Amino acid sequence: MNKFRVKCELDYETFGPLVFLLNIRAQDNESQKVVEESFSILPNMPHTLLTCGVTQNRFDRITAELPGTYHILYEAVVESALEKIPVSGLPPTTHEDFGLEQLPFLYPSRYCQSDRIGRLAFALFGHFETPVEKVQGIVEWIHQNIAYTIGSTTANTSAMDTLVDHAGVCRDFAHLGIALCRSLNIPARYFTGYAFELQPPDFHACFETWIGGRWMLWDATRLSSPDSVVRIGMGQDAADVSVCTAFGGLKVKSQRVMCEYLSESRAKMSAEELRSMVVCHEVRREAPAQPKTS
Amino acid sequence: MNKFRVKCELDYETFGPLVFLLNIRAQDNESQKVVEESFSILPNMPHTLLTCGVTQNRFDRITAELPGTYHILYEAVVESALEKIPVSGLPPTTHEDFGLEQLPFLYPSRYCQSDRIGRLAFALFGHFETPVEKVQGIVEWIHQNIAYTIGSTTANTSAMDTLVDHAGVCRDFAHLGIALCRSLNIPARYFTGYAFELQPPDFHACFETWIGGRWMLWDATRLSSPDSVVRIGMGQDAADVSVCTAFGGLKVKSQRVMCEYLSESRAKMSAEELRSMVVCHEVRREAPAQPKTS
Amino acid sequence: MNKFRVKCELDYETFGPLVFLLNIRAQDNESQKVVEESFSILPNMPHTLLTCGVTQNRFDRITAELPGTYHILYEAVVESALEKIPVSGLPPTTHEDFGLEQLPFLYPSRYCQSDRIGRLAFALFGHFETPVEKVQGIVEWIHQNIAYTIGSTTANTSAMDTLVDHAGVCRDFAHLGIALCRSLNIPARYFTGYAFELQPPDFHACFETWIGGRWMLWDATRLSSPDSVVRIGMGQDAADVSVCTAFGGLKVKSQRVMCEYLSESRAKMSAEELRSMVVCHEVRREAPAQPKTS
Amino acid sequence: MNKFRVKCELDYETFGPLVFLLNIRAQDNESQKVVEESFSILPNMPHTLLTCGVTQNRFDRITAELPGTYHILYEAVVESALEKIPVSGLPPTTHEDFGLEQLPFLYPSRYCQSDRIGRLAFALFGHFETPVEKVQGIVEWIHQNIAYTIGSTTANTSAMDTLVDHAGVCRDFAHLGIALCRSLNIPARYFTGYAFELQPPDFHACFETWIGGRWMLWDATRLSSPDSVVRIGMGQDAADVSVCTAFGGLKVKSQRVMCEYLSESRAKMSAEELRSMVVCHEVRREAPAQPKTS
Repeated sequence: MNKFRVKCELDYETFGPLVFLLNIRAQDNESQKVVEESFSILPNMPHTLLTCGVTQNRFDRITAELPGTYHILYEAVVESALEKIPVSGLPPTTHEDFGLEQLPFLYPSRYCQSDRIGRLAFALFGHFETPVEKVQGIVEWIHQNIAYTIGSTTANTSAMDTLVDHAGVCRDFAHLGIALCRSLNIPARYFTGYAFELQPPDFHACFETWIGGRWMLWDATRLSSPDSVVRIGMGQDAADVSVCTAFGGLKVKSQRVMCEYLSESRAKMSAEELRSMVVCHEVRREAPAQPKTS
Repeated sequence: MNKFRVKCELDYETFGPLVFLLNIRAQDNESQKVVEESFSILPNMPHTLLTCGVTQNRFDRITAELPGTYHILYEAVVESALEKIPVSGLPPTTHEDFGLEQLPFLYPSRYCQSDRIGRLAFALFGHFETPVEKVQGIVEWIHQNIAYTIGSTTANTSAMDTLVDHAGVCRDFAHLGIALCRSLNIPARYFTGYAFELQPPDFHACFETWIGGRWMLWDATRLSSPDSVVRIGMGQDAADVSVCTAFGGLKVKSQRVMCEYLSESRAKMSAEELRSMVVCHEVRREAPAQPKTS
Repeated sequence: MNKFRVKCELDYETFGPLVFLLNIRAQDNESQKVVEESFSILPNMPHTLLTCGVTQNRFDRITAELPGTYHILYEAVVESALEKIPVSGLPPTTHEDFGLEQLPFLYPSRYCQSDRIGRLAFALFGHFETPVEKVQGIVEWIHQNIAYTIGSTTANTSAMDTLVDHAGVCRDFAHLGIALCRSLNIPARYFTGYAFELQPPDFHACFETWIGGRWMLWDATRLSSPDSVVRIGMGQDAADVSVCTAFGGLKVKSQRVMCEYLSESRAKMSAEELRSMVVCHEVRREAPAQPKTS
Repeated sequence: MNKFRVKCELDYETFGPLVFLLNIRAQDNESQKVVEESFSILPNMPHTLLTCGVTQNRFDRITAELPGTYHILYEAVVESALEKIPVSGLPPTTHEDFGLEQLPFLYPSRYCQSDRIGRLAFALFGHFETPVEKVQGIVEWIHQNIAYTIGSTTANTSAMDTLVDHAGVCRDFAHLGIALCRSLNIPARYFTGYAFELQPPDFHACFETWIGGRWMLWDATRLSSPDSVVRIGMGQDAADVSVCTAFGGLKVKSQRVMCEYLSESRAKMSAEELRSMVVCHEVRREAPAQPKTS
């Protein structure tokens, strides 16, 4: 059990009455527990906490009546219940392992055109035997081949672009990992989070794959350890996970993000450890119940 | 209450053991009732009916052990409880009308890059006052400007392509309609179905928009009446709704689709009626409960 | 006959031995005469002036042996022999009017995918009768519909993107104009230049169309007058016309561009004048000789 | 000196008066000599032979006054003066080797977005030392990784698509080869031709690179031998080289292409020979004269 303190300060300017949704709170579920949290807006505006039943993303819906500059502060203490498992100890996977819940994470999405890259993925990673080895191969290939280059991409950039351009940032690394996994029939989803020791501090993006009845965490940028990211938003890709969705004019003035470790001193997972261990949600889900068989 | 008989015959060839998911059954929910149905495979294979809790799509998961040719037959009688409402009688919409359930249908998806086309949509449809008028304008514009041309597009074609090429089929018309709606902050989703009097008979694709607390149905091809389509699959776009998702080698040999009307004689909605009436799911949903307000 | 003084100062940093091509000199041909010019590099480097026989673009090929910072200064006095002709007085055009010389300007190119947009162009501009009216319609439509937004595009942006995004800068406006013209069988080419009164001062991009045996000049941004641009580079699109093509590491440190008028006071062409007059190269070329007819 | 007989029969249907350009004649220049040729149209239509001064492509411009079906027959005997040179015997290349004539073949074009793939090309081929080894590496990589799949692509498909899809036909193989070469500063151009022993017989597409003052021929499909293709059209990519460019309604009814060898029996170059030898135009051009040096 690892304990983190996370913090986010946002300054927004609004230009008229509008509603906006913020997705900055840590998820609160069986693999990650929010122990304490506070959320404030200055000057105060009506806001409502909504939790999505499907993704467990937690939104603050905020109604700004008057134009002005607003300061938003979120702080939380979060316990993360992730498990490290030796790659060699993983159970084999079968198609029985995934059900309808995982289906959206097999399909192509806005930024992850997995339908286009099956041949490419098979050429590069088809020789790996197990799903975990395939994902390890994908993460290693991305890390070796794609240049982490701030400013090289825009909000339009997709996994296809990143395959061509060979450059991107954390969001692009995650999209490419997801697209490659899905094209090999491995369910994969995107998540954002607060990452311990990320330099420069910012929101981070990583991905998870569904193998052997569990979600496993991966960071192809290697800028964080998969076991040290406090999850915020989860979805098919970045299209589902915006820090802010505004129905009207709104401008970000500044954004500060912080994540610190509250237990003993802590090291990033080494390259060696990343090769031999995978980081998983603790709970192994059974294959979904099957209501009617003929 | 309209009653339809639908039927679908598929011949598939398989090349080794594989699992595949079929999505050909009519949805069975409060706005569409399956009165009778039968599903058979010849020669028989183990199959399981699964219903997605989120989309209500109904899948037959089929396990084919041996290579061979399989004949699949689905027949159903379905009662559709859609309502026609005069455009002039619709309640006004506010942002309060949609909650987290509708959020995925506001975001861009694989084939509907609504994030790219905000300026274009505003230039073309910004002058319409209400959401319904905007959608009517979009449907009319697509009908007037995009050539319905069989063979003009592929499985890779997206709404951006269709905007450029000005040609497509039902799937492309739906994607473009959805992308335009979302870019104007109107939630929109894709559905496939059995369409009465569609020539040539085939699976059809249309879209729905969330306005004033209801889903409304639209067909920008004008090849069917929105009140005469029996819904099968629903999702963000065609990526979520495949007739068949196969985890292994499978080939479609033939496919026959039929939809007939079981009540008195029936006419397609006229152009005049399409201008003055909208087709809605009967049930108006309240805005989702809001668990915690500060 | 209009006389302009143009000036360009560039500061480049190089990181090792390299060769680079600069394309900053004014064209010197029958429709634009270079009266005086000077070109210098500090510290001096070996350089050679090369003129392309096909495009008449003038390149300085520079060999930088040592890493360092180089200051390049170009100044010229240029007489421009363009003609303004009333739209109503133009001769009719036939396919005989263009030969193999114009063929490359009918074909799609890197940033002008005219092959994709024939239906769109016909829907928007098919009702105009003559080629000149079509181009006037295209220029007006771009001016009305595309937002001139600095920073909205990158070096990858093409006419297809601009059609979708409805935003761009001078380069994007020119690419879209060219693509639309070519898709309607009107030869169109790209040029860059020094533009009188452009704010902020910079290199500018416009386009020309081949109608009735002459090249005519158009600026869909309306930021310059077509009769007040001193031409530098000409080609199918921006891919053919770079200020600098470097075979090695080179970085632009700063760039200053100036264009002033040397005769009496000068006004931009008014909206009214732009509707009734077209700006042409003075020389009307006959259709190319046809070597052998059977 | 190899001698080939080539033949092409086309049946076109026209729907009104139109002009069209055919590009089916063998090039006639210093590296390929047309010894005999005949060209006929039935029923006869006015036609003119035009030869482009830049590309040496030979066009028949045909004026069809009346709608109807036309049969076009072209036959020629062509002597090809290509040279096979051992890779080990090639002179070193410097930037001095190319001048303005080669510049268009360094720039990105409609189907060859070399501007996007510099990092990718460097990652895959940067370790090869000489330009010829780089091109050999590119041809081998394409041959190993891209599936030759008839029907997998359309007229819109570009090198970027082929990199993503890993499938294509001869045109796509050539585009990808060209884009990769240009991104490594090796001038590369597209050509079409009649290919000896191509199965099924059809027009073929290959590419040439400018290395050490000569154009060298490459076929990444390995379906033909580079020394056994009679060249027809040459350009930046397929956009410049259409069999038929029509200014009006025209439909291809059928197309038959033939290429046979007229000397002793002939074998395709073996994999071994393709590794050790390159096929070049006989004439080595000097670097272009440099008119003025300061």
